[in-house]
Amino acid sequence: MTDGPASSAPRLDVERLRRDFPILAQTVRGRKLVFLDSGASAQKPRQVIEAMVRCMEERYANVHRGAYFLSEAATEAYEAARGAVARFLNAADPREVVFTRNSTEAINLVAHAWGRGVMRPGQAVLVSEMEHHANLVPWQMLRDDGRGIALRVCRVTDDGELDLEDLAAKLADGKVGLVAVTHMSNVLGTVTPAERIVAMAHAAGAKVLLDGSQAAVHRRVDVQAIGADFYCFTGHKLYGPTGIGVLWARLEHLDRMPPFLGGGDMIASVTLERSEWAPPPAKFEAGTPAIVEAVGLHAAVDYVTALGWPAIEAHERALVDRAMRRLSGIEGLRLLGRAQDRGGVFSFALDNAHPHDLSTLLDRAGIAVRAGRHCAEPLHARFGLEGGTCRASFGLYTTEEEVDFLAEALVKAREFFG
Amino acid sequence: MTDGPASSAPRLDVERLRRDFPILAQTVRGRKLVFLDSGASAQKPRQVIEAMVRCMEERYANVHRGAYFLSEAATEAYEAARGAVARFLNAADPREVVFTRNSTEAINLVAHAWGRGVMRPGQAVLVSEMEHHANLVPWQMLRDDGRGIALRVCRVTDDGELDLEDLAAKLADGKVGLVAVTHMSNVLGTVTPAERIVAMAHAAGAKVLLDGSQAAVHRRVDVQAIGADFYCFTGHKLYGPTGIGVLWARLEHLDRMPPFLGGGDMIASVTLERSEWAPPPAKFEAGTPAIVEAVGLHAAVDYVTALGWPAIEAHERALVDRAMRRLSGIEGLRLLGRAQDRGGVFSFALDNAHPHDLSTLLDRAGIAVRAGRHCAEPLHARFGLEGGTCRASFGLYTTEEEVDFLAEALVKAREFFG
Repeated sequence: MTDGPASSAPRLDVERLRRDFPILAQTVRGRKLVFLDSGASAQKPRQVIEAMVRCMEERYANVHRGAYFLSEAATEAYEAARGAVARFLNAADPREVVFTRNSTEAINLVAHAWGRGVMRPGQAVLVSEMEHHANLVPWQMLRDDGRGIALRVCRVTDDGELDLEDLAAKLADGKVGLVAVTHMSNVLGTVTPAERIVAMAHAAGAKVLLDGSQAAVHRRVDVQAIGADFYCFTGHKLYGPTGIGVLWARLEHLDRMPPFLGGGDMIASVTLERSEWAPPPAKFEAGTPAIVEAVGLHAAVDYVTALGWPAIEAHERALVDRAMRRLSGIEGLRLLGRAQDRGGVFSFALDNAHPHDLSTLLDRAGIAVRAGRHCAEPLHARFGLEGGTCRASFGLYTTEEEVDFLAEALVKAREFFG
Repeated sequence: MTDGPASSAPRLDVERLRRDFPILAQTVRGRKLVFLDSGASAQKPRQVIEAMVRCMEERYANVHRGAYFLSEAATEAYEAARGAVARFLNAADPREVVFTRNSTEAINLVAHAWGRGVMRPGQAVLVSEMEHHANLVPWQMLRDDGRGIALRVCRVTDDGELDLEDLAAKLADGKVGLVAVTHMSNVLGTVTPAERIVAMAHAAGAKVLLDGSQAAVHRRVDVQAIGADFYCFTGHKLYGPTGIGVLWARLEHLDRMPPFLGGGDMIASVTLERSEWAPPPAKFEAGTPAIVEAVGLHAAVDYVTALGWPAIEAHERALVDRAMRRLSGIEGLRLLGRAQDRGGVFSFALDNAHPHDLSTLLDRAGIAVRAGRHCAEPLHARFGLEGGTCRASFGLYTTEEEVDFLAEALVKAREFFG
């Protein structure tokens, strides 16, 4: 569907890669499954599932702790996953990769260890109106913790883009210690200008955390090129396992930060009186980590990398172009956001239809979309849609036929709801 | 090996259940694998692995968020896991079960939400000398957080039991707000008298957290009979997945506690100005949970329950009796602890042998034991073994022949190290 120069770009063989995802062969209520909720969580290819099974059947033991064969093999696999994630993000050093449960925990880790451990009274955290609750609530909790840290909110334009003038204005007094914004909105699909945000923030003396939960799935991320201070994403949205996420941070920041959770593995020595911390990343990984999930995430990262970002991005552009064309022509359908740079996430409201009723109707046609406020209530309020929206989000395995199928189902739904 | 009344008790068919664990069929360095490190992490039966695979291949989507078939099915499976864990612990209500990453996170959750959110300046936390670092370091961090919370440490006797006189003495002034002790030592195998500890603590006005990481694997746990306030365990030691643990707490406590991590799913409503929390357990489960791992934990709990506690406990007693007999007869081998009530965990030091060298030698014979201080440095210091010990820990699949094999290998090792 791309034309011009894009047609010479590498293409995904979507029909072929779909065969890697066992769940996609399913029928739902007698209909072929059209899974358009990858933005909430993606399906898993057999390569990920098999890597986890192999780990549990052949190479499992606790890590970092045993001087015996299986433990050494498990430790090697766990640390190899860290190395793979470091390469995936183009991190300067694998020690900059901390495994967490999910993006939410990664952001909470920064809110505790950087926000409470390094920031000073009088400083502020600057978020945006389009944050997922995961990148808003931890900062509200920090603000309310009696440490004198304020919370500022950058506006979003009517087109659903970050208002860079407002960003500049809110950075101007030099009191912002940390800018914490999404790299891609989970509601609008807007991809934010990460490098520009970082440049503006650094010029104003602020560090930058980017929530890459959506972006890392849709775009090649290079943390060094972006110049960010903190970056996080989650395994389960990247075709990997649940129970594992990633916080990347510059080593110098991890060195400065006190630990967040206390326990085994994060210490260098412990007496009853006091403990000494291990160096990063161990300092931030207390207790037995998600070993099998790290191995699965490694397989997911390998899977995506082997497909190649040019092909993935071209596929996504084709889907986004088709969705914009097909959905924007439907009368009574309101699409949220029209950012210049956007990924495969579309939220919409249909006249006279409650989003839950609409999603239930679509489900009967085998189409899985999400209904609600997508963990972004303030953004829905910003657009006057307190009642919520439906959201269709695309993955590697999404086809142009599925986009058409959604559009046709929405046309029928419009007739149904009148 | 049990005699008298025990012989009429139900018995585990260990040879048969071993076939459920694919990894046990392995050879290591050409030798049959003798896995004696289940206390660090247990191997997984195919029932657990298959449940996880089925979830990812047939019923996967994010939970609590979608009004479509797959999401409803995944939500049902996730909440069914909570129900199964509630029954496993005999909790009064499934809402008392909070899923965490592991025991470590469960304890940190209590240290933050109860320790910082409910306890008052001037109060103390009382731990014991035999705590795993996971149940010591979070309380040191609370003590050092400038909130006026002190940390007291209950002594352990030379036999490796909790010194109940010392416990009484340290509770006497009524200033202890929380007693946080292990239900079974991961080094000594000592099972602590949970009901008595709870009675003493409650009489002194203190709440009780029991670290059941080891105990929940070796004994039937009934949180209502024990009368505890908080209880935690971890999936991966209970033949379940990594990446999931459990905090059980009385609902009235969870209601009083502020949230720990902020993000999606733990809120009732969010505006830019403020958020309202969801009721427990959602309040403590921010972000996408370990969905597949919860399903795997459900299978693990079902697996253990189907074998039956009387049979599991009888098997364990037989192994412990045999190990006591065989190991205590080896000259130059020092066994740590001789508690009356103990489970299948044995730590030992061999004259003239560094524990790492000993475990490496055992590994060459195919025997996996752990060497080090087992995340319990203060306890090793207490027994004058700062250099560490080796530890053999038993699981469902451990055989009496394996205990013999360990004893024989230790006799040979003694000759080797001289």
